[in-house]
Formats: sequence, C-alpha cells, structure tokens
Amino acid sequence: MPQSYDRVFNFSAGPCTLPVEVLEEAREDLLNYKGTGLSVMEMSHRSKPYEKIIGEAEADLRTVLGVPEGYKVLFLQGGASLQFTMIPMGFLPAAASADYIITGAWGKKALEAAQMVGTVRKIFDAKDSNYNHAPKLTSLDVDPNAAYIHYTSNETIQGVDFFEDPSTAGNWVCDASSDILSRPMDVSKYAMMYAGAQKNMGPAGVVVAIVRDSFFDTLVEKTHPMLDYRVHAENGSMYNTPACWSIYMCGLVYKYLLRNGGLAASAERNQKKAGTIYSAIDGSGGFYKGHAVPENRSWMNITFTLPNEDLTTEFIAGAKAKGMIELKGHRSVGGCRASIYNAFPQEGCDALAQFMGEFAAARG
Amino acid sequence: MPQSYDRVFNFSAGPCTLPVEVLEEAREDLLNYKGTGLSVMEMSHRSKPYEKIIGEAEADLRTVLGVPEGYKVLFLQGGASLQFTMIPMGFLPAAASADYIITGAWGKKALEAAQMVGTVRKIFDAKDSNYNHAPKLTSLDVDPNAAYIHYTSNETIQGVDFFEDPSTAGNWVCDASSDILSRPMDVSKYAMMYAGAQKNMGPAGVVVAIVRDSFFDTLVEKTHPMLDYRVHAENGSMYNTPACWSIYMCGLVYKYLLRNGGLAASAERNQKKAGTIYSAIDGSGGFYKGHAVPENRSWMNITFTLPNEDLTTEFIAGAKAKGMIELKGHRSVGGCRASIYNAFPQEGCDALAQFMGEFAAARG
Repeated sequence: MPQSYDRVFNFSAGPCTLPVEVLEEAREDLLNYKGTGLSVMEMSHRSKPYEKIIGEAEADLRTVLGVPEGYKVLFLQGGASLQFTMIPMGFLPAAASADYIITGAWGKKALEAAQMVGTVRKIFDAKDSNYNHAPKLTSLDVDPNAAYIHYTSNETIQGVDFFEDPSTAGNWVCDASSDILSRPMDVSKYAMMYAGAQKNMGPAGVVVAIVRDSFFDTLVEKTHPMLDYRVHAENGSMYNTPACWSIYMCGLVYKYLLRNGGLAASAERNQKKAGTIYSAIDGSGGFYKGHAVPENRSWMNITFTLPNEDLTTEFIAGAKAKGMIELKGHRSVGGCRASIYNAFPQEGCDALAQFMGEFAAARG
Repeated sequence: MPQSYDRVFNFSAGPCTLPVEVLEEAREDLLNYKGTGLSVMEMSHRSKPYEKIIGEAEADLRTVLGVPEGYKVLFLQGGASLQFTMIPMGFLPAAASADYIITGAWGKKALEAAQMVGTVRKIFDAKDSNYNHAPKLTSLDVDPNAAYIHYTSNETIQGVDFFEDPSTAGNWVCDASSDILSRPMDVSKYAMMYAGAQKNMGPAGVVVAIVRDSFFDTLVEKTHPMLDYRVHAENGSMYNTPACWSIYMCGLVYKYLLRNGGLAASAERNQKKAGTIYSAIDGSGGFYKGHAVPENRSWMNITFTLPNEDLTTEFIAGAKAKGMIELKGHRSVGGCRASIYNAFPQEGCDALAQFMGEFAAARG
C-alpha cells in the first residue's frame, strides 16, 4: 500500500485516480462548504455559492487549457457517448456530410452514432493494424465541404495518441476525453473539443464541450432542447440541473493544475511517467511488447502484451498483490493496460516498472 | 445555525438537503472506500467494488419503493429533462399519439419536448387557475389507444400533488422527480416511473427510470444508442460510464430510508412536517395564503404568498438571518416556497412555522 490513507496505485482507464489534495479538500468541505452551512451536493444550482463554483470552474478551465476568446465552454451530461449523437444532430445538416477518422474503439463508436443521424465518410481506419497507430492529420483526404472532421486525439483502449493539433482548414472536432489537460493543446485550431471528465478532470457524470462561436452558427435550426447546444449555451449550462458535484470536483482539479505549473508542467510529468513504463517494455528483451507504434505511444494509456495469457494473468495478480490495480487490458487488445492520467503519481510508474523488470527476469 | 456542523435549514427545491448521516458516511470513505484503497469517485465503473455499489443501490431501491418483478430499474444521465425527450422518442411511434396532463411547469416542459417528437394530446391543463390543483386521474378523457399517458405526480414549482396512483387501464408514465420515496406508491400501476435524484434520492446528475417489461416491448425499433432504453437496460445502466458518485450517494440514501422505517415512516414524517407549515399558513388569519387547493397541497413544496412584495422580501431576509435559506418562490407563483423533502428535518419546519407566526404578528 504505497501512499498515505492506505491507497492503492490505481491504473484504471477511467474513472481513475484523482489528486489526493483535491479529495482532501472535498472531504474537508463535505458537510459545510466554506461556511455556507450546506454541502455542495445540497446547493441549489441557482444559488450564489454554486454560481461561483461553476463560474470559477469555467474560468479556470479557460485559463489552464488556454481557451481563446470566441469559444463557449459547456458542462453537460451523458458523457462523450451522448456527444457522439449530439454533434451530428446539431452540426450535420441533411444536405451535408462529415468526415470521421478512426484510430480505435471510441472513434468507431462516434462514427456509428453519427451514421444513425446523417451522411458520414470514413476517411481513415487503422483496423488492419488492430489500431496501433494514428495518421498525420495533414496526410488525409479531407472533404473541403465537410460539415466537420471528427477524430479522437487519444484512444483509451488502444493507447494511441495523435500528439498533433489540426493545421489545415475545416471544422475539426476532437474527442479529447483521455488526453485533455495532459499536455498543451492549441484550442484555436478546433471548431470543437469535448471530453468526458472521468480521466483528467474529475469524477464521471460531466462532459465538457468547448465550441467555437462560428461553429455554433452552423447549427441546424432546432433540435430537442436537451440535445441542442444553443439551449445549453443560452442557459449557461443550466437549462436543467447540471451535474453539480462533478463540476465542483473538476473545478478543484483545474485549480490544482494551475497551482502545479499548468499544462507545460503536466506534459513534462506525464512524458516522464510514460517513459518510465515504456522503458520497462523496451528494456525487457521482447518479454513485453508495446501495442502502439513508438510515435503514437500514448502518455495516458500504456498498452502492452506478455508472451501468453497465463503469464498475463499471473502478472496482473502479482501486481495487485503489491497494491497496483486495474492493469488488465481491454479484450480487443489483450494483455495489459496501465492508465496513468494526470493525477497518477510517478511513484506508481516506478513501482510498476520495477515489478515488470522483476517479473520478466523471473519468468522471461 | 440550528444543526451541528453549523448547517443551515436549506429549503431549496433541489438540489437540496441530504441526511447528515449519509454525508458523514460519504466523508468517512472519501479517500479510501471500505479498504479498497481508493475513492468511489476514482473507481472503474466495471470494478467489483463499484458493481456491488450499483447493484445494492438498485436492490435497495426496489425494496424501499416496492418495485414488483417485471420492471427494469435504470440509472441514467440528463435528468428528468432528457427523459422528456427520450420517452416520446422511444415510446411514441409515428402512427400513435400520447396523452399529457399538465398541472404545472414541469408537465408543460415534458409536453413541449414530446411535441417535437410526435403527436400528443393535452387532456388537462390547469393554466386558468395558475396551476393550483390536480384533477382526479379517473375523471380524465383518456384516449384508450394512447401510446401512454404522462403526468407529473408532484409539481415542484406550484406545490401541487396528485396523491393518487392510476387505477384505470393504459400505459401511465409518471414524472415523480419531486415526490418519489416521500410516501408509498403502487409502482405496479405504472408503465414507467422516473425521477431526477436531486430531491429525495441524492445529488444531481442521475435520473432513475423504472420501466415495466411489457412497456419495453412497445419501444420503437431503434433509436440513437444513448437515447435507447433497450441499450441502457441490456448494459445494466453501463452502456457508457454512469454518474458513479451520484448513484453511490443515492444508494446510501436508500439504505438510510430502509433503516428508518421505509416509506410508511417517510410519509408520516413528511405529512407532519408539511402540516406544521400549512398550519402556520392557515392560522395566520389570511396573512399567508397557500397557492395549492387543500386536497392537492404538496408535502414536498409548500407554496404561499404574503400580502405584498415588500413583506415577502423582508420575510425571506428575516428567515435567512435565522439560518433558513432558499425560501424565495418561483416567479410564476411568486411569494415563498418551502421545499421540505425527505431529509429535511422537522425542527426546520418548526423553526419556520414559529418565524412565520412572529412575522405575521409583527407585520400583519
């Protein structure tokens, strides 16, 4: 049990590790938030204290991520999965078409949801390589008339990251659920960026949508109120009762990131953490094999296999016995996955790398 | 400051007061849930500890509410507001029509959302009385071929409650967001009952949908995955990452209710609490006027007016100075609203009634 509070090293792909000091702050204020006499969970979303909480969360997210003027920031429900439907419902008129780039499981889900709404083109699919790489965005045959071009900056299941902002024309829409805030991104290059909270931002239950004003102007005339970005924007994410507690927790995480050097420092920490584990893979003489090609190796989700299933099972059980949990890979990739989002500590990566070395030496 | 922890009496219409012992339990386990080494907010929703949490929440809700066999219980996102769209999308085929009963603001919103999906009939609307009463359900001219009949058991803004389960044929669909678990209800009479959590169940961010299997069989063939009850049911509310923390908190509340005598005891406490405040209204010689007609007076939301706006403002400020917050009524009704859901204590009602008496004596 490597941390205080007898906490484990939690390699879950999400929901996942949150900063201990953020959890401590939430605990401190749980029954009486800063002298208001009530819990954040009990506050009217229209009360002054809660308006301050959501207002600061938005402002801090804008600061830490560098959201330029001319973008709306919305806190919605239903996760990235509901965005998969809301995006084409809103931004894909009947006469138009949208381009989708598939580098893994989540991009595929986004594509399938969009196919139920309108006309889409799949302009890249890494299926033949079992999703082990991402293309250069500039290399793709993008429809110049596409309503938008959709991609998944980091594929959580495959551990494949583009590490690239768009640099060409077009309305680029990015599902950044699993790498937002892990490194600097140039939001100005995107028509829309969205991300479920439960990796790098906070607990599950809220999804952030960052939408350029000019992209808003392309919205179809009207859709169902809860599925209409305009309705949510006009009501400041308060058309209905938002996921108040999850937004509050995200706000605490944004402040934590700002206190700790912002995204440049995040990127440095994350690259080092990932490097620790990739080095253990590469230094194992082939005992561990990385799934992603080196240039797309995710800093967030490290996917690797062992020589066979028995060894994989033994490895996961052995790690668990040492307080390292949730290392089982998704069945589509097999093997192991170590998810090490922003709040996951370097010490956990060191511990895993050491165990990997010992295990390979004993069984290799 | 009337309670321990310097807590106020919080009359918010939702999110609202939660049981202190539930908040204490959440605080106790915040950084390490029952020896798992992590917070519930950090748990993979597919982990064994979380499966136990959501499984027990469902089982306890079934027990406390008396959900019969042959019903699905789903924990979804987007609140009752997204249900307003999902229900007609799923249960209102193009060739059919649904009946809506409007006794206040939320029923009206449900109707408007349904009108964007298909054909609906409004079979009752209490608009002419500014929504101060509910009809007897048996008195209505229900379409025998209606896909379903929708009503709002308690209107939060108007403080109007039916206090009646349906007793006639038809697929009755009830938005019970603000009175579920406040008193026994006969779930077997409903094709579907749904409720946002943030009144009587837990924090915002989750909505419970209880759907009869035979009503499921009437679903339209296919719709968008996140808007498809079948998809959520087939995946045990885990098609996407659910609102894990909010569901956990609801689970703690269900256990609290079971420990405290179930819904019969809830009803007794709630009727007494409401009676305390209605007595203060009725005993004021006309200084306070109740909005709802006596037979539909909500036990959850007590709406009343004072002689004029100046006195209303003074009353709300005076109450706040005594630690009683969120008493301002909605602009559509005016005056005051005291929301006293399950977890709101009798002492808060006593304190309000006493202040009402003193204020009327001084200003009446």
